[in-house]
Amino acid sequence: MLQTFDSLAEPERVAERVKALRAFMSKAKIDAVLVPRSDKHQGEYVPACAERLKWLTGFSGSAGIAVVAKKTAVLMVDGRYTVQAAAETDTNVLEVSLLPRAKLFEWLTTNVSKGGIVGFDPWNHTAGEINRLAAALAPKGIKLKALAKNPIDVLWGKERPSPPQNPVIAQPIAFAGRSAADKISELQARLKADGQSAVVLTLPDSICWLFNIRGSDVAHNPVVLAFAIVPATGKAELFIAPDRLDSEARTEVAPVAKLLAPGTLADRIKALKEKGKPVRLDPETAAYWFEQNLGAKLISRGQDPCIVPKAIKSDAEVIGARAAHVRDGHAVVRFLAWLDDWASDGTLDEITAVRKLEEFRSDTNMLRDVSFPTISGSGPNGAIVHYRVSEATNRRVAPGELFLIDSGGQYPDGTTDITRTIAVGQPTKDMQRHFTAVLKGHIAIATARFPKGTRGIDLDPFARRALWQIGADFDHGTGHGIGSYLSVHEGPQSISRMGMAQLHPGMLISNEPGYYKVGEYGIRIENVVLVTLPEMVEGGDRETMAFETLTLAPIDQRLILPEMLEKSERDWLNAYHKHVFDTLAPGLDQSTRNWLKQATQAV
Amino acid sequence: MLQTFDSLAEPERVAERVKALRAFMSKAKIDAVLVPRSDKHQGEYVPACAERLKWLTGFSGSAGIAVVAKKTAVLMVDGRYTVQAAAETDTNVLEVSLLPRAKLFEWLTTNVSKGGIVGFDPWNHTAGEINRLAAALAPKGIKLKALAKNPIDVLWGKERPSPPQNPVIAQPIAFAGRSAADKISELQARLKADGQSAVVLTLPDSICWLFNIRGSDVAHNPVVLAFAIVPATGKAELFIAPDRLDSEARTEVAPVAKLLAPGTLADRIKALKEKGKPVRLDPETAAYWFEQNLGAKLISRGQDPCIVPKAIKSDAEVIGARAAHVRDGHAVVRFLAWLDDWASDGTLDEITAVRKLEEFRSDTNMLRDVSFPTISGSGPNGAIVHYRVSEATNRRVAPGELFLIDSGGQYPDGTTDITRTIAVGQPTKDMQRHFTAVLKGHIAIATARFPKGTRGIDLDPFARRALWQIGADFDHGTGHGIGSYLSVHEGPQSISRMGMAQLHPGMLISNEPGYYKVGEYGIRIENVVLVTLPEMVEGGDRETMAFETLTLAPIDQRLILPEMLEKSERDWLNAYHKHVFDTLAPGLDQSTRNWLKQATQAV
Repeated sequence: MLQTFDSLAEPERVAERVKALRAFMSKAKIDAVLVPRSDKHQGEYVPACAERLKWLTGFSGSAGIAVVAKKTAVLMVDGRYTVQAAAETDTNVLEVSLLPRAKLFEWLTTNVSKGGIVGFDPWNHTAGEINRLAAALAPKGIKLKALAKNPIDVLWGKERPSPPQNPVIAQPIAFAGRSAADKISELQARLKADGQSAVVLTLPDSICWLFNIRGSDVAHNPVVLAFAIVPATGKAELFIAPDRLDSEARTEVAPVAKLLAPGTLADRIKALKEKGKPVRLDPETAAYWFEQNLGAKLISRGQDPCIVPKAIKSDAEVIGARAAHVRDGHAVVRFLAWLDDWASDGTLDEITAVRKLEEFRSDTNMLRDVSFPTISGSGPNGAIVHYRVSEATNRRVAPGELFLIDSGGQYPDGTTDITRTIAVGQPTKDMQRHFTAVLKGHIAIATARFPKGTRGIDLDPFARRALWQIGADFDHGTGHGIGSYLSVHEGPQSISRMGMAQLHPGMLISNEPGYYKVGEYGIRIENVVLVTLPEMVEGGDRETMAFETLTLAPIDQRLILPEMLEKSERDWLNAYHKHVFDTLAPGLDQSTRNWLKQATQAV
Repeated sequence: MLQTFDSLAEPERVAERVKALRAFMSKAKIDAVLVPRSDKHQGEYVPACAERLKWLTGFSGSAGIAVVAKKTAVLMVDGRYTVQAAAETDTNVLEVSLLPRAKLFEWLTTNVSKGGIVGFDPWNHTAGEINRLAAALAPKGIKLKALAKNPIDVLWGKERPSPPQNPVIAQPIAFAGRSAADKISELQARLKADGQSAVVLTLPDSICWLFNIRGSDVAHNPVVLAFAIVPATGKAELFIAPDRLDSEARTEVAPVAKLLAPGTLADRIKALKEKGKPVRLDPETAAYWFEQNLGAKLISRGQDPCIVPKAIKSDAEVIGARAAHVRDGHAVVRFLAWLDDWASDGTLDEITAVRKLEEFRSDTNMLRDVSFPTISGSGPNGAIVHYRVSEATNRRVAPGELFLIDSGGQYPDGTTDITRTIAVGQPTKDMQRHFTAVLKGHIAIATARFPKGTRGIDLDPFARRALWQIGADFDHGTGHGIGSYLSVHEGPQSISRMGMAQLHPGMLISNEPGYYKVGEYGIRIENVVLVTLPEMVEGGDRETMAFETLTLAPIDQRLILPEMLEKSERDWLNAYHKHVFDTLAPGLDQSTRNWLKQATQAV
């Protein structure tokens, strides 16, 4: 489970593979092929057998798409990955282009002639994606063609890893809080109300949530890669090799679902089609293959119906989240105390920090995995928002620098995600000014009250105001939803410029404003917060909700300019630090407790 | 120009008129008729000849729609107007229903049988509205039919007032800042870039802005009700009786536009259709009649291209706005001083206040009209957000009550809009607590800095935060755009939960958070602000914009709890009040100046 640190990829095989793909295209009479990062389940992480984009281009990032035409080829990635993509691929063969400014349909219209055919694997694109692309290409006389076999798989051949067959375990009711039967019956009531005969589920975390199962098919997210069909009445169908389930998982699933071999999915979809009744499918998350095989007419388009109830944590999940955050807090505090000690001698480096933090988390004896590859950035590396340290980029933290570490743990009772920024040696006044502005934004979110109906977009500005006032900002969202021993990024809730989903009590969300001075330092302060139940405050006339901060770890006071804080902000900081100390101290050894006492003293 | 105060409408003729309409329907073989408040130009104010909804139903509000079916009839109004609509119409004949919860298409599907025909006047609905309604009704087998004659006009007969033929004057270049020729040439460049042969303009304020003309065809908005066609090359066509233009207006318009009689519009549209080249039309503001007569195929859908450039004020318009606000500030301060004096004897009433304020504005010798009917609400009337005082509702302001007055002036150099809430006698602690929370929201907007790309939706939460924290909120937007001697409500900018338009330097917008305690009191503090040019603040790393407050009048300090204000908020208040005094004092008589000195003292 220890994280590994890649050297940079070797681009030397890219030319040969693109050439082979072009030979395939020529035989198949197609003029271009789409090679996306996504797999059948559209997740952030894919199993080794689905790393087709990496196989073809060398690019190892978590999002992107390559298009190979007869003479030209492009690798489209978003802003996080432009530098990495150019370093990992062969830029003589593939042009690297920036999403979303680069438009797939524009590239195709200029690189494929009229009458041309663009092949794609119907499993690896959503229905929404394909339908929009087809509509945009139609006026140009370019057609999309769903390929029967994925060309990369054909070329990859025997070298291609097998799909994961890892064990499937139960998520105990003590942690899930609701039985699979209860969740399924609520889902079925919804289908009946909406006049739908069944729903096809394609998102692994929806399926794991619904059936109370967990697995290890991809890195860091304890999900099982499976599909499911839930009819409005009767037993659900879960497509997964039955022998992968351990006895507890089987006991949980057997009463509510038939276990069917994955190979039978096509037949069951065919059976649904023959029935001719409306089937719910989420065009933005389900593979185009389902629309192709069910037929567009039968499909009742709607969001995956697990997404919202999964995001609203059960009481048991909230209790689990609190426990996981106490446990994680112990590990993080031990790490921060260790860091303060080591940093002073100038030999601390980014990879050592990652290893040490993972060691402290492992010491809890409850860690199942880290919840994502730790972002460990010293000095200028901290300003790269999605920085992932490698042997090549690893650097020491010198005195006078900031060190940013963003990490989390997967525990059976909850998922954590925390970022702290630490001063090594004496920080500059500018570092302190920026840190305090970020802290003011963090506190503005932590202390916000808001009425029912409030969306994440309505809170995001609170995180930015203090930065805006000093002519600064950060170019990422303020917060993302978090699963319960599931994906560390989970919808529908977010706090961002695009966050139109309403916040409901029981949702977990991160609070992580930041500031990045390119080439110098990065700052981010991240806690996980829980949306509280609506209540009437004294003297109020409508109910409001608030956030309860779950994450427990000190915020580096050496980086705070107290004169920049309003009294109410100082009050929050002191109350938070007192709470951190009171909650964590009993579980710490004497020397760490002493360190924490000093780190949490009132300003 | 003095405002009039209606007694409540008499609903006694509603039954007779609805009966006559049903007889018309029967002869015309239609099963229902739509009677909207809107006219050909979709404005907030309509001329007397277009008050069809009022003629039929008695309802005099500024938005709503009636539908008369064979046996049933409904009057749909929004939340502002439910009480008024029920009082003004005959509820035995028309059911009053609340938009947007009430859905037009739902009412039609339950009140018109399959195969039924719903008639409408193609001039009084937008293309977007009709197309959406037709699509919703199609699956129910109900059809919409564009009527050749408006049935209300037929029934209204000779009693119907003539369309306004008021003089059209020029908006001098000294106030407009840009010549009509300059604006038209920019517009034509845009049409060429977008591959459009012409644009049809239907919004009176777009046309008045583009041609630098003003009129008095409707109340309070100095617009001319006209249409225009601007080709991508060549002279524009303005459809208006040429003899309505005074010589200055003619001099301004003649070089850039042919003046054509309104009756020739249909022929010119026909000519455009015959040319067969793309014509730009805004489906959300242009009447369905244009789509019907141009043909949907020819239409290149796009927002009215005057909307954004009109909202970004020229330097001259900004200078004019500043001057108008100084002038208006003198009138408002004289009014507030007078009010303090009179209020103490307990005989002040809402209508007297409106008359007195209009008198002070008239004394400036520059007032052309009020910019909307003054909202003058004492005690519980202040809690009715869009309250309009009538002889029937007029009430005295008793000691211990709050008095809310929302008003504005149309001056040749600018339009103003200001709300102040005044304590009469000793306010309660709760009034002060709510007032101070509203003030904190007002200050949070007034002092905000924000980067390029910021939308109104990103600022709206700042106006609400202090209220949310005490369990309160307000159910209207925080701010609307404002014209330059044009409509007091102007898009695209707004500060609201729906405000997706980006803010640009030069835009004028209101800052008006409020709080309403139903049955007790209303609070609103409104100033007009100007979006400033982007600048780099010291120590910043990206340019930010801010707001310059233009409105000049004291905020009632008897309603402020200073202990609820942070230091930065007190600083803003004191600086604002000093600015108000310094700017206005030179133009005031000694006793008003003394009053202002005391009203603007530092807290």
